[in-house]
Amino acid sequence: MRIDVLTLFPEMFEGVFTSSILGKAREKGLVELHTVNFRDYANNKHNTVDDYPYGGGGGMVLKPDPIFAAVEDITPKDETKPRVILMCPQGEPFTQKKAEELSADKHLIFICGHYEGYDERIREHLVTDELSIGDYVLTGGELPAMVVIDSVVRLLPGVLGNEMSAVTDSFSTGLLEYPHYTRPATFRNWSVPDVLISGHHGHIDEWRRKQSLYRTWKKRPDLLAAADLTPKDRKWLAEFEAERDRTEAD
Amino acid sequence: MRIDVLTLFPEMFEGVFTSSILGKAREKGLVELHTVNFRDYANNKHNTVDDYPYGGGGGMVLKPDPIFAAVEDITPKDETKPRVILMCPQGEPFTQKKAEELSADKHLIFICGHYEGYDERIREHLVTDELSIGDYVLTGGELPAMVVIDSVVRLLPGVLGNEMSAVTDSFSTGLLEYPHYTRPATFRNWSVPDVLISGHHGHIDEWRRKQSLYRTWKKRPDLLAAADLTPKDRKWLAEFEAERDRTEAD
Repeated sequence: MRIDVLTLFPEMFEGVFTSSILGKAREKGLVELHTVNFRDYANNKHNTVDDYPYGGGGGMVLKPDPIFAAVEDITPKDETKPRVILMCPQGEPFTQKKAEELSADKHLIFICGHYEGYDERIREHLVTDELSIGDYVLTGGELPAMVVIDSVVRLLPGVLGNEMSAVTDSFSTGLLEYPHYTRPATFRNWSVPDVLISGHHGHIDEWRRKQSLYRTWKKRPDLLAAADLTPKDRKWLAEFEAERDRTEAD
Repeated sequence: MRIDVLTLFPEMFEGVFTSSILGKAREKGLVELHTVNFRDYANNKHNTVDDYPYGGGGGMVLKPDPIFAAVEDITPKDETKPRVILMCPQGEPFTQKKAEELSADKHLIFICGHYEGYDERIREHLVTDELSIGDYVLTGGELPAMVVIDSVVRLLPGVLGNEMSAVTDSFSTGLLEYPHYTRPATFRNWSVPDVLISGHHGHIDEWRRKQSLYRTWKKRPDLLAAADLTPKDRKWLAEFEAERDRTEAD
Protein backbone atom coordinates (compact mmCIF):
# COMPACT_ATOMS: atom_id res chain seq x y z
CA MET A 1 0.00 0.00 0.00
CA ARG A 2 1.08 3.56 -0.69
CA ILE A 3 -0.15 6.45 1.46
CA ASP A 4 0.35 10.14 0.67
CA VAL A 5 -0.57 12.88 3.12
CA LEU A 6 -1.11 16.42 1.87
CA THR A 7 -0.33 18.79 4.73
CA LEU A 8 1.18 22.16 5.51
CA PHE A 9 2.86 20.58 8.59
CA PRO A 10 4.86 17.58 7.32
CA GLU A 11 7.15 17.76 10.38
CA MET A 12 4.23 16.66 12.59
CA PHE A 13 4.38 13.21 10.96
CA GLU A 14 8.07 12.47 11.39
CA GLY A 15 8.05 10.85 14.83
CA VAL A 16 4.84 8.94 14.14
CA PHE A 17 5.85 7.59 10.73
CA THR A 18 9.22 6.33 11.96
CA SER A 19 8.24 4.74 15.33
CA SER A 20 6.54 1.58 16.41
CA ILE A 21 4.26 -0.31 14.02
CA LEU A 22 4.26 2.31 11.25
CA GLY A 23 8.05 2.53 11.31
CA LYS A 24 8.37 -1.26 11.23
CA ALA A 25 5.79 -1.72 8.47
CA ARG A 26 7.74 0.81 6.43
CA GLU A 27 11.08 -0.90 7.07
CA LYS A 28 9.62 -4.24 6.02
CA GLY A 29 8.41 -2.64 2.77
CA LEU A 30 4.73 -3.30 3.58
CA VAL A 31 3.71 0.35 3.24
CA GLU A 32 5.11 3.50 1.66
CA LEU A 33 4.35 6.64 3.68
CA HIS A 34 4.88 10.07 2.12
CA THR A 35 4.06 13.60 3.18
CA VAL A 36 3.48 16.26 0.53
CA ASN A 37 3.51 19.94 1.42
CA PHE A 38 0.87 21.32 -0.91
CA ARG A 39 2.31 24.80 -0.50
CA ASP A 40 4.88 23.61 -3.06
CA TYR A 41 2.03 23.56 -5.59
CA ALA A 42 0.87 27.15 -5.03
CA ASN A 43 1.28 28.94 -8.35
CA ASN A 44 1.50 32.48 -7.06
CA LYS A 45 4.49 34.48 -5.93
CA HIS A 46 3.74 34.40 -2.20
CA ASN A 47 3.02 30.63 -2.17
CA THR A 48 -0.45 31.33 -0.85
CA VAL A 49 -2.66 28.32 -0.26
CA ASP A 50 -5.61 30.04 1.38
CA ASP A 51 -7.71 33.14 0.74
CA TYR A 52 -10.71 35.05 2.13
CA PRO A 53 -14.14 33.43 1.81
CA TYR A 54 -16.59 34.65 -0.83
CA GLY A 55 -19.57 36.16 0.92
CA GLY A 56 -17.47 37.41 3.85
CA GLY A 57 -17.13 36.14 7.39
CA GLY A 58 -14.16 35.11 9.52
CA GLY A 59 -11.62 32.42 8.82
CA MET A 60 -9.66 31.50 5.72
CA VAL A 61 -10.47 28.97 3.01
CA LEU A 62 -8.04 26.59 1.29
CA LYS A 63 -7.83 27.36 -2.42
CA PRO A 64 -8.71 24.58 -4.86
CA ASP A 65 -5.77 24.91 -7.30
CA PRO A 66 -2.79 23.80 -5.13
CA ILE A 67 -4.68 20.79 -3.80
CA PHE A 68 -5.89 19.62 -7.23
CA ALA A 69 -2.37 20.11 -8.61
CA ALA A 70 -0.75 18.13 -5.78
CA VAL A 71 -3.20 15.20 -6.02
CA GLU A 72 -2.79 15.04 -9.80
CA ASP A 73 0.98 15.18 -9.54
CA ILE A 74 1.26 12.28 -7.09
CA THR A 75 -1.29 10.04 -8.81
CA PRO A 76 0.48 7.54 -11.09
CA LYS A 77 -0.57 7.83 -14.74
CA ASP A 78 -1.95 4.29 -14.84
CA GLU A 79 -4.15 4.81 -11.78
CA THR A 80 -7.74 5.50 -12.75
CA LYS A 81 -9.23 7.35 -9.79
CA PRO A 82 -7.25 7.55 -6.56
CA ARG A 83 -8.98 7.33 -3.20
CA VAL A 84 -8.83 10.85 -1.78
CA ILE A 85 -9.78 11.16 1.88
CA LEU A 86 -10.62 14.49 3.45
CA MET A 87 -10.30 14.67 7.23
CA CYS A 88 -13.01 17.05 8.47
CA PRO A 89 -15.49 17.39 11.34
CA GLN A 90 -18.51 16.90 9.10
CA GLY A 91 -17.20 13.67 7.62
CA GLU A 92 -18.62 10.20 8.06
CA PRO A 93 -17.75 8.93 11.56
CA PHE A 94 -14.67 6.70 11.25
CA THR A 95 -15.16 3.10 12.41
CA GLN A 96 -13.23 -0.17 12.46
CA LYS A 97 -15.33 -1.31 9.52
CA LYS A 98 -14.14 1.67 7.50
CA ALA A 99 -10.53 0.87 8.48
CA GLU A 100 -11.03 -2.63 7.06
CA GLU A 101 -12.48 -1.22 3.85
CA LEU A 102 -9.57 1.19 3.39
CA SER A 103 -7.00 -1.53 4.14
CA ALA A 104 -8.06 -3.31 0.92
CA ASP A 105 -7.01 -0.33 -1.23
CA LYS A 106 -3.64 0.10 -2.95
CA HIS A 107 -3.26 3.87 -2.69
CA LEU A 108 -4.72 6.32 -0.18
CA ILE A 109 -4.33 10.09 -0.37
CA PHE A 110 -5.19 12.14 2.72
CA ILE A 111 -5.90 15.87 2.66
CA CYS A 112 -5.33 17.65 5.97
CA GLY A 113 -6.62 21.17 6.39
CA HIS A 114 -5.43 23.15 9.33
CA TYR A 115 -8.20 25.27 10.89
CA GLU A 116 -9.01 26.77 7.49
CA GLY A 117 -12.13 25.70 5.65
CA TYR A 118 -11.92 23.84 2.32
CA ASP A 119 -13.14 25.32 -0.95
CA GLU A 120 -16.26 23.32 -1.69
CA ARG A 121 -15.01 22.33 -5.15
CA ILE A 122 -12.33 20.16 -3.50
CA ARG A 123 -15.11 18.23 -1.76
CA GLU A 124 -17.32 17.96 -4.79
CA HIS A 125 -14.85 17.10 -7.53
CA LEU A 126 -11.75 15.57 -5.95
CA VAL A 127 -12.58 13.89 -2.65
CA THR A 128 -13.97 10.34 -2.49
CA ASP A 129 -14.34 9.98 1.29
CA GLU A 130 -14.85 12.49 4.10
CA LEU A 131 -13.96 11.15 7.53
CA SER A 132 -14.25 12.41 11.09
CA ILE A 133 -12.64 10.56 14.01
CA GLY A 134 -15.04 11.97 16.63
CA ASP A 135 -17.20 14.88 17.79
CA TYR A 136 -14.51 17.08 19.28
CA VAL A 137 -12.72 20.13 17.86
CA LEU A 138 -9.11 19.74 16.72
CA THR A 139 -6.70 22.22 15.19
CA GLY A 140 -6.17 20.34 11.94
CA GLY A 141 -6.60 17.14 10.01
CA GLU A 142 -3.09 15.90 10.78
CA LEU A 143 -3.80 14.01 14.02
CA PRO A 144 -6.99 12.48 12.57
CA ALA A 145 -5.04 11.33 9.48
CA MET A 146 -2.43 9.68 11.74
CA VAL A 147 -5.21 7.88 13.62
CA VAL A 148 -6.78 6.55 10.42
CA ILE A 149 -3.38 5.56 8.99
CA ASP A 150 -2.39 3.67 12.16
CA SER A 151 -5.67 1.76 12.25
CA VAL A 152 -5.43 0.88 8.52
CA VAL A 153 -1.74 -0.08 8.35
CA ARG A 154 -1.97 -2.44 11.32
CA LEU A 155 -4.54 -4.44 9.34
CA LEU A 156 -2.18 -5.03 6.38
CA PRO A 157 -0.92 -8.62 6.10
CA GLY A 158 2.43 -9.13 7.83
CA VAL A 159 2.38 -5.93 9.86
CA LEU A 160 1.37 -7.29 13.26
CA GLY A 161 3.34 -9.99 15.05
CA ASN A 162 1.58 -12.79 16.88
CA GLU A 163 1.94 -11.14 20.25
CA MET A 164 -0.33 -8.32 19.10
CA SER A 165 -2.95 -10.13 17.09
CA ALA A 166 -3.94 -11.94 20.30
CA VAL A 167 -4.76 -8.65 21.93
CA THR A 168 -6.70 -7.48 18.91
CA ASP A 169 -8.82 -10.60 19.05
CA SER A 170 -10.31 -9.51 22.30
CA PHE A 171 -12.17 -6.80 20.36
CA SER A 172 -13.71 -9.31 18.03
CA THR A 173 -16.12 -10.48 20.76
CA GLY A 174 -17.77 -7.07 20.58
CA LEU A 175 -17.37 -6.68 24.36
CA LEU A 176 -14.95 -4.60 26.42
CA GLU A 177 -11.85 -6.43 27.66
CA TYR A 178 -11.78 -8.25 31.00
CA PRO A 179 -9.28 -7.02 33.65
CA HIS A 180 -5.63 -8.05 33.24
CA TYR A 181 -3.14 -8.73 36.03
CA THR A 182 0.57 -9.47 36.04
CA ARG A 183 3.33 -9.74 38.63
CA PRO A 184 3.74 -8.92 41.45
CA ALA A 185 0.87 -11.00 42.85
CA THR A 186 0.54 -8.47 45.65
CA PHE A 187 1.40 -4.84 44.99
CA ARG A 188 0.90 -2.42 47.91
CA ASN A 189 -1.61 -4.76 49.58
CA TRP A 190 -3.64 -5.07 46.38
CA SER A 191 -3.73 -8.70 45.31
CA VAL A 192 -4.53 -10.50 42.10
CA PRO A 193 -7.95 -12.26 42.20
CA ASP A 194 -7.54 -15.84 43.49
CA VAL A 195 -9.20 -17.42 40.47
CA LEU A 196 -6.38 -16.23 38.18
CA ILE A 197 -3.75 -18.10 40.18
CA SER A 198 -5.95 -21.18 40.71
CA GLY A 199 -4.68 -22.91 37.56
CA HIS A 200 -8.27 -23.96 36.75
CA HIS A 201 -8.73 -22.88 33.13
CA GLY A 202 -12.48 -23.43 33.04
CA HIS A 203 -12.97 -21.10 36.02
CA ILE A 204 -10.58 -18.54 34.58
CA ASP A 205 -12.40 -18.44 31.24
CA GLU A 206 -15.73 -18.10 32.97
CA TRP A 207 -14.52 -15.33 35.29
CA ARG A 208 -13.06 -13.42 32.32
CA ARG A 209 -16.19 -13.69 30.23
CA LYS A 210 -18.38 -12.52 33.10
CA GLN A 211 -16.04 -9.56 33.82
CA SER A 212 -16.03 -8.62 30.15
CA LEU A 213 -19.79 -8.72 30.07
CA TYR A 214 -20.14 -6.78 33.32
CA ARG A 215 -17.86 -3.98 32.14
CA THR A 216 -19.66 -3.68 28.84
CA TRP A 217 -23.04 -3.66 30.59
CA LYS A 218 -21.84 -0.98 32.99
CA LYS A 219 -19.78 1.30 30.72
CA ARG A 220 -20.92 0.74 27.15
CA PRO A 221 -24.37 -0.92 27.13
CA ASP A 222 -24.77 0.31 23.53
CA LEU A 223 -22.28 -2.40 22.46
CA LEU A 224 -24.42 -5.25 23.82
CA ALA A 225 -26.96 -5.04 21.01
CA ALA A 226 -24.39 -6.07 18.39
CA ALA A 227 -22.46 -8.57 20.57
CA ASP A 228 -22.66 -12.32 20.09
CA LEU A 229 -24.22 -13.48 23.38
CA THR A 230 -24.70 -17.03 24.70
CA PRO A 231 -27.64 -18.13 26.90
CA LYS A 232 -25.26 -18.00 29.89
CA ASP A 233 -24.31 -14.41 29.03
CA ARG A 234 -28.00 -13.50 29.03
CA LYS A 235 -28.46 -15.14 32.43
CA TRP A 236 -25.57 -13.05 33.81
CA LEU A 237 -27.00 -9.88 32.30
CA ALA A 238 -30.31 -10.62 34.01
CA GLU A 239 -28.39 -11.02 37.29
CA PHE A 240 -26.66 -7.64 36.84
CA GLU A 241 -30.03 -6.00 36.19
CA ALA A 242 -31.63 -7.69 39.21
CA GLU A 243 -28.73 -6.62 41.42
CA ARG A 244 -29.07 -3.03 40.26
CA ASP A 245 -32.82 -3.03 40.85
CA ARG A 246 -32.26 -4.47 44.32
CA THR A 247 -29.65 -1.81 45.15
CA GLU A 248 -31.80 1.00 43.83
CA ALA A 249 -34.76 -0.21 45.89
CA ASP A 250 -32.73 -0.03 49.13
CA MET B 1 -1.28 24.10 32.56
CA ARG B 2 1.25 21.31 32.80
CA ILE B 3 0.84 18.08 30.84
CA ASP B 4 2.95 14.94 31.33
CA VAL B 5 2.68 11.96 29.03
CA LEU B 6 3.90 8.56 30.20
CA THR B 7 4.91 6.56 27.13
CA LEU B 8 7.44 4.04 25.86
CA PHE B 9 7.59 6.01 22.57
CA PRO B 10 8.45 9.62 23.51
CA GLU B 11 9.89 10.24 20.01
CA MET B 12 6.36 9.98 18.55
CA PHE B 13 5.45 13.26 20.28
CA GLU B 14 8.36 15.40 19.07
CA GLY B 15 6.91 16.69 15.81
CA VAL B 16 3.46 17.21 17.27
CA PHE B 17 4.56 19.00 20.44
CA THR B 18 6.79 21.45 18.55
CA SER B 19 4.53 22.35 15.57
CA SER B 20 1.51 24.50 15.02
CA ILE B 21 -0.75 25.43 17.96
CA LEU B 22 0.92 23.17 20.53
CA GLY B 23 4.36 24.49 19.61
CA LYS B 24 3.14 28.10 19.81
CA ALA B 25 1.29 27.60 23.09
CA ARG B 26 4.48 26.16 24.53
CA GLU B 27 6.63 29.03 23.23
CA LYS B 28 4.21 31.56 24.75
CA GLY B 29 4.51 29.75 28.10
CA LEU B 30 0.80 28.85 28.17
CA VAL B 31 1.42 25.14 28.54
CA GLU B 32 4.29 22.88 29.62
CA LEU B 33 4.44 19.61 27.68
CA HIS B 34 6.62 16.75 28.91
CA THR B 35 7.07 13.15 27.89
CA VAL B 36 8.21 10.60 30.47
CA ASN B 37 9.52 7.21 29.44
CA PHE B 38 8.25 4.98 32.23
CA ARG B 39 10.84 2.36 31.32
CA ASP B 40 13.20 4.61 33.30
CA TYR B 41 11.21 3.64 36.42
CA ALA B 42 11.50 -0.13 35.96
CA ASN B 43 13.33 -1.44 39.02
CA ASN B 44 14.67 -4.67 37.55
CA LYS B 45 17.84 -5.35 35.67
CA HIS B 46 16.30 -5.76 32.21
CA ASN B 47 14.15 -2.62 32.52
CA THR B 48 11.07 -4.71 31.97
CA VAL B 49 7.75 -2.86 32.04
CA ASP B 50 5.45 -5.71 31.04
CA ASP B 51 5.00 -9.35 31.96
CA TYR B 52 2.78 -12.36 31.19
CA PRO B 53 -0.86 -12.25 32.35
CA TYR B 54 -1.95 -14.22 35.42
CA GLY B 55 -4.39 -16.87 34.30
CA GLY B 56 -2.70 -17.33 30.93
CA GLY B 57 -3.68 -16.17 27.46
CA GLY B 58 -1.90 -14.17 24.77
CA GLY B 59 -0.59 -10.64 25.01
CA MET B 60 1.48 -8.87 27.63
CA VAL B 61 0.36 -6.74 30.57
CA LEU B 62 1.95 -3.50 31.82
CA LYS B 63 3.27 -3.95 35.36
CA PRO B 64 1.92 -1.64 38.04
CA ASP B 65 5.21 -0.65 39.75
CA PRO B 66 6.94 1.45 37.02
CA ILE B 67 3.75 3.40 36.30
CA PHE B 68 2.97 4.15 39.96
CA ALA B 69 6.60 5.19 40.50
CA ALA B 70 6.61 7.50 37.46
CA VAL B 71 3.32 9.22 38.39
CA GLU B 72 4.46 9.71 41.98
CA ASP B 73 7.82 11.08 40.89
CA ILE B 74 6.35 13.74 38.56
CA THR B 75 3.58 14.83 40.92
CA PRO B 76 4.67 17.93 42.86
CA LYS B 77 4.70 17.43 46.64
CA ASP B 78 2.04 20.10 47.22
CA GLU B 79 -0.38 18.60 44.71
CA THR B 80 -3.05 16.56 46.42
CA LYS B 81 -4.32 14.15 43.80
CA PRO B 82 -3.22 14.62 40.19
CA ARG B 83 -5.61 13.96 37.33
CA VAL B 84 -4.38 10.74 35.73
CA ILE B 85 -5.91 9.90 32.37
CA LEU B 86 -5.68 6.43 30.86
CA MET B 87 -6.17 6.22 27.10
CA CYS B 88 -7.90 2.90 26.38
CA PRO B 89 -10.60 1.44 24.14
CA GLN B 90 -12.99 0.80 27.02
CA GLY B 91 -12.79 4.35 28.30
CA GLU B 92 -15.55 6.93 28.36
CA PRO B 93 -16.06 8.27 24.82
CA PHE B 94 -14.14 11.57 24.53
CA THR B 95 -16.29 14.60 23.69
CA GLN B 96 -15.90 18.36 23.36
CA LYS B 97 -17.57 18.71 26.76
CA LYS B 98 -14.85 16.55 28.32
CA ALA B 99 -12.19 18.70 26.58
CA GLU B 100 -13.72 21.76 28.25
CA GLU B 101 -13.73 20.05 31.64
CA LEU B 102 -10.06 19.03 31.31
CA SER B 103 -9.04 22.51 30.14
CA ALA B 104 -9.98 23.87 33.60
CA ASP B 105 -7.39 21.66 35.30
CA LYS B 106 -3.82 22.70 36.19
CA HIS B 107 -2.04 19.39 35.69
CA LEU B 108 -2.90 16.44 33.47
CA ILE B 109 -0.99 13.16 33.40
CA PHE B 110 -1.63 10.80 30.47
CA ILE B 111 -0.74 7.10 30.52
CA CYS B 112 -0.27 5.54 27.09
CA GLY B 113 -0.09 1.79 26.81
CA HIS B 114 1.11 0.29 23.57
CA TYR B 115 -0.86 -2.82 22.58
CA GLU B 116 -0.21 -4.36 26.01
CA GLY B 117 -3.01 -4.53 28.54
CA TYR B 118 -2.83 -2.59 31.81
CA ASP B 119 -2.59 -4.29 35.19
CA GLU B 120 -6.00 -3.66 36.71
CA ARG B 121 -4.51 -2.10 39.86
CA ILE B 122 -3.36 0.88 37.76
CA ARG B 123 -7.01 1.46 36.77
CA GLU B 124 -8.40 0.98 40.23
CA HIS B 125 -5.95 2.89 42.38
CA LEU B 126 -4.16 5.46 40.21
CA VAL B 127 -6.30 6.50 37.27
CA THR B 128 -9.00 9.18 37.59
CA ASP B 129 -10.31 9.19 34.00
CA GLU B 130 -10.40 6.53 31.28
CA LEU B 131 -10.90 7.95 27.80
CA SER B 132 -11.43 6.51 24.33
CA ILE B 133 -11.40 8.71 21.22
CA GLY B 134 -13.57 6.34 19.14
CA ASP B 135 -14.56 2.75 18.37
CA TYR B 136 -11.61 1.75 16.20
CA VAL B 137 -8.49 -0.25 17.04
CA LEU B 138 -5.18 1.61 17.35
CA THR B 139 -1.69 0.38 18.19
CA GLY B 140 -1.27 2.47 21.31
CA GLY B 141 -2.51 5.32 23.46
CA GLU B 142 -0.04 7.81 21.97
CA LEU B 143 -2.17 9.11 19.07
CA PRO B 144 -5.30 9.29 21.27
CA ALA B 145 -3.33 11.27 23.89
CA MET B 146 -2.18 13.73 21.18
CA VAL B 147 -5.79 14.16 20.06
CA VAL B 148 -7.01 14.90 23.59
CA ILE B 149 -4.07 17.24 24.27
CA ASP B 150 -4.65 19.22 21.05
CA SER B 151 -8.35 19.65 21.81
CA VAL B 152 -7.66 20.72 25.40
CA VAL B 153 -4.73 23.09 24.80
CA ARG B 154 -6.55 25.03 22.06
CA LEU B 155 -9.19 25.93 24.68
CA LEU B 156 -6.67 27.55 27.05
CA PRO B 157 -6.93 31.34 27.21
CA GLY B 158 -4.52 33.07 24.81
CA VAL B 159 -3.75 30.02 22.70
CA LEU B 160 -5.95 30.70 19.67
CA GLY B 161 -5.64 33.85 17.59
CA ASN B 162 -8.75 35.61 16.34
CA GLU B 163 -8.52 34.08 12.89
CA MET B 164 -9.15 30.67 14.40
CA SER B 165 -11.75 31.39 17.03
CA ALA B 166 -14.06 32.50 14.21
CA VAL B 167 -13.85 29.08 12.62
CA THR B 168 -14.40 27.36 15.93
CA ASP B 169 -17.56 29.37 16.45
CA SER B 170 -19.20 27.61 13.58
CA PHE B 171 -19.34 24.49 15.75
CA SER B 172 -21.20 26.28 18.48
CA THR B 173 -24.40 26.27 16.41
CA GLY B 174 -24.48 22.49 16.78
CA LEU B 175 -24.82 22.12 12.99
CA LEU B 176 -22.28 21.10 10.36
CA GLU B 177 -20.53 23.93 8.55
CA TYR B 178 -21.93 25.50 5.37
CA PRO B 179 -19.83 25.24 2.16
CA HIS B 180 -16.91 27.66 1.80
CA TYR B 181 -15.59 29.14 -1.44
CA THR B 182 -12.59 31.29 -2.23
CA ARG B 183 -10.83 32.51 -5.38
CA PRO B 184 -10.77 31.79 -8.25
CA ALA B 185 -14.47 32.47 -8.87
CA THR B 186 -14.37 29.91 -11.65
CA PHE B 187 -12.01 26.95 -11.39
CA ARG B 188 -12.14 24.38 -14.22
CA ASN B 189 -15.69 25.45 -15.15
CA TRP B 190 -16.91 25.08 -11.57
CA SER B 191 -18.18 28.41 -10.35
CA VAL B 192 -18.89 29.91 -6.95
CA PRO B 193 -22.66 30.15 -6.21
CA ASP B 194 -24.04 33.53 -7.39
CA VAL B 195 -25.46 34.46 -4.01
CA LEU B 196 -21.97 34.61 -2.46
CA ILE B 197 -20.82 37.28 -4.91
CA SER B 198 -24.13 39.18 -4.78
CA GLY B 199 -22.98 41.41 -1.93
CA HIS B 200 -26.40 40.98 -0.27
CA HIS B 201 -25.57 39.98 3.30
CA GLY B 202 -29.09 38.98 4.25
CA HIS B 203 -29.28 36.53 1.35
CA ILE B 204 -25.80 35.20 2.09
CA ASP B 205 -26.63 34.53 5.75
CA GLU B 206 -29.85 32.82 4.78
CA TRP B 207 -28.16 30.65 2.14
CA ARG B 208 -25.44 29.63 4.59
CA ARG B 209 -27.88 28.73 7.35
CA LYS B 210 -29.98 26.64 4.99
CA GLN B 211 -26.89 24.84 3.63
CA SER B 212 -25.68 24.15 7.15
CA LEU B 213 -29.05 22.75 8.07
CA TYR B 214 -29.30 20.68 4.89
CA ARG B 215 -25.90 19.07 5.40
CA THR B 216 -26.66 18.25 9.00
CA TRP B 217 -30.03 16.79 8.05
CA LYS B 218 -28.43 14.72 5.32
CA LYS B 219 -25.18 13.55 6.96
CA ARG B 220 -25.61 13.77 10.73
CA PRO B 221 -29.34 13.93 11.58
CA ASP B 222 -28.41 12.80 15.10
CA LEU B 223 -27.04 16.32 15.73
CA LEU B 224 -30.39 18.02 15.01
CA ALA B 225 -31.95 16.92 18.30
CA ALA B 226 -29.49 19.02 20.32
CA ALA B 227 -29.23 21.99 17.89
CA ASP B 228 -30.80 25.36 18.58
CA LEU B 229 -33.39 25.65 15.80
CA THR B 230 -35.55 28.62 14.77
CA PRO B 231 -39.09 28.34 13.34
CA LYS B 232 -37.58 29.05 9.90
CA ASP B 233 -35.12 26.19 10.35
CA ARG B 234 -38.02 23.87 11.13
CA LYS B 235 -39.84 25.02 8.02
CA TRP B 236 -36.76 24.21 5.92
CA LEU B 237 -36.41 20.81 7.55
CA ALA B 238 -40.05 20.06 6.64
CA GLU B 239 -39.23 21.04 3.05
CA PHE B 240 -36.24 18.68 2.94
CA GLU B 241 -38.43 15.85 4.24
CA ALA B 242 -41.21 16.60 1.74
CA GLU B 243 -38.69 16.69 -1.11
CA ARG B 244 -37.27 13.33 -0.07
CA ASP B 245 -40.74 11.78 0.20
CA ARG B 246 -41.63 13.15 -3.23
CA THR B 247 -38.42 11.74 -4.76
CA GLU B 248 -38.90 8.35 -3.15
CA ALA B 249 -42.50 8.17 -4.40
CA ASP B 250 -41.36 8.70 -8.01
